[in-house]
Amino acid sequence: MNKKMVFYMLGKIVQLEAALMVPSLICACLYKENRIVLSFAVTIAIALIMGFVLSALGKTKNKEIYAKEGFVIVALAWIGMSAVGAVPFVISGEIPSFLDAFFETVSGFTTTGSSILTDIEAMSKGLLFWRSFTHWVGGMGVLVLVMAILPSESGRTIHIIRAEMPGPVIGKLVPKVKSTSRILYLIYIFLSAVQVIFLLCGNMSLFDSLVHTFGTAGTGGFGVRADSIGGYSPYIQWVITIFMLIFGVNFNIYYFILAKKFKSVLKSEELLVYISIIVVSSGVIAIDIFNNIAEMNVLSDSIRHATFQAASIVTTTGYVTVDYNLWPGLSKTIITILLFIGACAGSTAGGFKVSRVIMIFKSIKANLKHSLHSRSVEVVRVEGKSLDSETVSSVKSYLAIYIFCFVIILALISFNGYDVETNFTAAATCFNNVGPGLGMIGPAGSFQEFSNFSKLVLSAAMLLGRLEIYPMLLLFSPSVWIKRKAKVKAK
Amino acid sequence: MNKKMVFYMLGKIVQLEAALMVPSLICACLYKENRIVLSFAVTIAIALIMGFVLSALGKTKNKEIYAKEGFVIVALAWIGMSAVGAVPFVISGEIPSFLDAFFETVSGFTTTGSSILTDIEAMSKGLLFWRSFTHWVGGMGVLVLVMAILPSESGRTIHIIRAEMPGPVIGKLVPKVKSTSRILYLIYIFLSAVQVIFLLCGNMSLFDSLVHTFGTAGTGGFGVRADSIGGYSPYIQWVITIFMLIFGVNFNIYYFILAKKFKSVLKSEELLVYISIIVVSSGVIAIDIFNNIAEMNVLSDSIRHATFQAASIVTTTGYVTVDYNLWPGLSKTIITILLFIGACAGSTAGGFKVSRVIMIFKSIKANLKHSLHSRSVEVVRVEGKSLDSETVSSVKSYLAIYIFCFVIILALISFNGYDVETNFTAAATCFNNVGPGLGMIGPAGSFQEFSNFSKLVLSAAMLLGRLEIYPMLLLFSPSVWIKRKAKVKAK
Repeated sequence: MNKKMVFYMLGKIVQLEAALMVPSLICACLYKENRIVLSFAVTIAIALIMGFVLSALGKTKNKEIYAKEGFVIVALAWIGMSAVGAVPFVISGEIPSFLDAFFETVSGFTTTGSSILTDIEAMSKGLLFWRSFTHWVGGMGVLVLVMAILPSESGRTIHIIRAEMPGPVIGKLVPKVKSTSRILYLIYIFLSAVQVIFLLCGNMSLFDSLVHTFGTAGTGGFGVRADSIGGYSPYIQWVITIFMLIFGVNFNIYYFILAKKFKSVLKSEELLVYISIIVVSSGVIAIDIFNNIAEMNVLSDSIRHATFQAASIVTTTGYVTVDYNLWPGLSKTIITILLFIGACAGSTAGGFKVSRVIMIFKSIKANLKHSLHSRSVEVVRVEGKSLDSETVSSVKSYLAIYIFCFVIILALISFNGYDVETNFTAAATCFNNVGPGLGMIGPAGSFQEFSNFSKLVLSAAMLLGRLEIYPMLLLFSPSVWIKRKAKVKAK
Repeated sequence: MNKKMVFYMLGKIVQLEAALMVPSLICACLYKENRIVLSFAVTIAIALIMGFVLSALGKTKNKEIYAKEGFVIVALAWIGMSAVGAVPFVISGEIPSFLDAFFETVSGFTTTGSSILTDIEAMSKGLLFWRSFTHWVGGMGVLVLVMAILPSESGRTIHIIRAEMPGPVIGKLVPKVKSTSRILYLIYIFLSAVQVIFLLCGNMSLFDSLVHTFGTAGTGGFGVRADSIGGYSPYIQWVITIFMLIFGVNFNIYYFILAKKFKSVLKSEELLVYISIIVVSSGVIAIDIFNNIAEMNVLSDSIRHATFQAASIVTTTGYVTVDYNLWPGLSKTIITILLFIGACAGSTAGGFKVSRVIMIFKSIKANLKHSLHSRSVEVVRVEGKSLDSETVSSVKSYLAIYIFCFVIILALISFNGYDVETNFTAAATCFNNVGPGLGMIGPAGSFQEFSNFSKLVLSAAMLLGRLEIYPMLLLFSPSVWIKRKAKVKAK
């Protein structure tokens, strides 16, 4: 393990985080929130010092980064960033408990949007801005950002990108990692800017437009009002619906559009299935609530709320317009299923990802055939290309490890003593980076009531989900930390 | 496809079912239930005629059975048996709706134990006997019974056994399929007889002892009282607990004991994990209910009920002693997780099976290692032997197909409009052949309220679960039914 390089990268990331706090500091200045300005200033100072110390500790000529270092850097970076990002909440006194602040920041960076706040409208503007800004940064990935702006440190930075943006297909658009990172961030900034303009056109204030764009772009879900998006106009709700869906699409698609490779766009099975899932689930929910909920007896309302909610859950954003906890069982069961699916790979969304669902489905088909003719070979074709058996096997392994982690999280959470629906959806919504669940943690609820132990477990669940499990689990694997030499000696 | 052989085997099975109804007919005679005697007599006559016609249609010299025929025979046999088995309920008028009677019989043969009955104590003895007897027959498998008693028809009957008792390891104890089937049934009969004796010693009536032994041995769960096992003495409850656990063990273990291969018994990882799951889950539930439920404030009571319930759920039996729907969230969440696990492979239990859980867990460990050192080979060792990659891959495929089927069942069931907990556990309890769930279908509930569509879906779920998915799914696969020649022509 190249520990020096790990220190070096962590140092750079903490420094970057200090820089990322500047917009929030400016926001606090503009709103004359002196205590918040001070909180950010102190945190930035701490972060810069920490960053310099870490980078200095990590000075080395050996800049090699392998898979192992990639995983460790990413896992530690995300834990460290969340810890540092929690500091302003604590110093300002707005979230006095560090654990609560840590939960909130993890929820921010992982673009989950689960909150321990019970009175969000009492928070200062500066901290609300920071809270939502973590969504925006976390959505595309902090290390992707580092790669995009730092001078190329090593030829092997692909291992870092791979650990932070895993997915079944690696999002390398162009041969150079640096250029890929830049292209991704440019598309991200452009789309975000367009959303801000659309929101401003709906008479939303600049502050609200920015905050909600951060929440939408990162598919996070933090807002500024107790009723999330419920109080805004139908126009605003539709704009947010559409942009949630846009940010749930694989960014490769936008690159293809830029590069005028329209054929590749049309060939995308993932896009097709993604759209189908949204159309079918919104349709069923719309009919269900139209028939069963008194306030939804206007068809256009039921369609708007159903589409908003389906889009919000499947893209793992987690914004709400109404308390769907009061919806009928069919709609709630569909929402529970959608909690797990997630949007496209290579987007800012969490969850299992549509492309994996497709591969699993196709491998099941191949497997059924194989069980009849044991000599036939399982060939899984996605988008015209046949996948090699290792890719298929790794997706099946991911399913296994995903289920395994989910069951462990669920078992640990259930020590809360709450009802099954709350336990189950709390584990699901955090692990899949969605935000709200059902029962106690429905749209009207909060994670405040959970025990400290549960908050830690759910923080870990959010990180596991966002980094797609491997980096976090490997952090606890002895083989990452034990030197090869030591092994040989042991023999 | 050797359709003749399919007809022939189906004919034999229907004839066998006619024979299997004789004990129930005798029971009805003893209790002087004339209408029930008549119902059985008519059904037996119908079954015999059907059986002869089918066997006659299937007369052929080509007795070859391949994987395809194995799957089709098993799937059709189970559907056919359930349809014929439902007839006495309908003729007698005790379950007037054929669909309800079909659901009940599927639930019986698949050893699920979910019931549409709302007043079980009003049923005749003869039909209660038949209902429970289907558990006993279904537990070990009807085709295994056919193999045990019929003269060997073909050298390839292993394909039938494989389709009916799939599991990750094929339960072939001795080289000959016929001998394996006989050994399995002899162990099964012996253990059942021992249980009857133990129950009789607890002053249970012979009728109740037989019925509850059928329910325990098949890990089914049909009883004769509205409160299931709740009204019997603690002694009876402990006897049933222990025998549920015994019938959840891989029958290979008993064969090893008979063959004095004690080392193989001690080496069984599955047995160890199975026992650990029961000890840990009963322990946690016992503490949870001891602390939170007023009636459980005697430690011995809480231990008895917790162990009974954990054993009942993990072995997929489904008997209950108390209404665990009223237990705290922790206990109910554990029960929900246990709903899926199931007991050992090669036992009469349903569910995902402990051995698969072990293999998945080990393959995850190997997979994590592999993600660090991509050149390392994933080696999964179970009980000292390293599994070939195909076995590991097929277990992962089974997980994928299992999750896929579960989600489809859940989605279809949710059209009921009931709450999420009811929908989720109804799908889980039927698919895993357990019996009761939570919410509306908890220990005090019934499946009567479900729509006809849901009852059909759940019947299919029970069959899918009992036959471990493949035979049922392949029944709907065109490649089973389309002749190879036709395929060539199409090209």
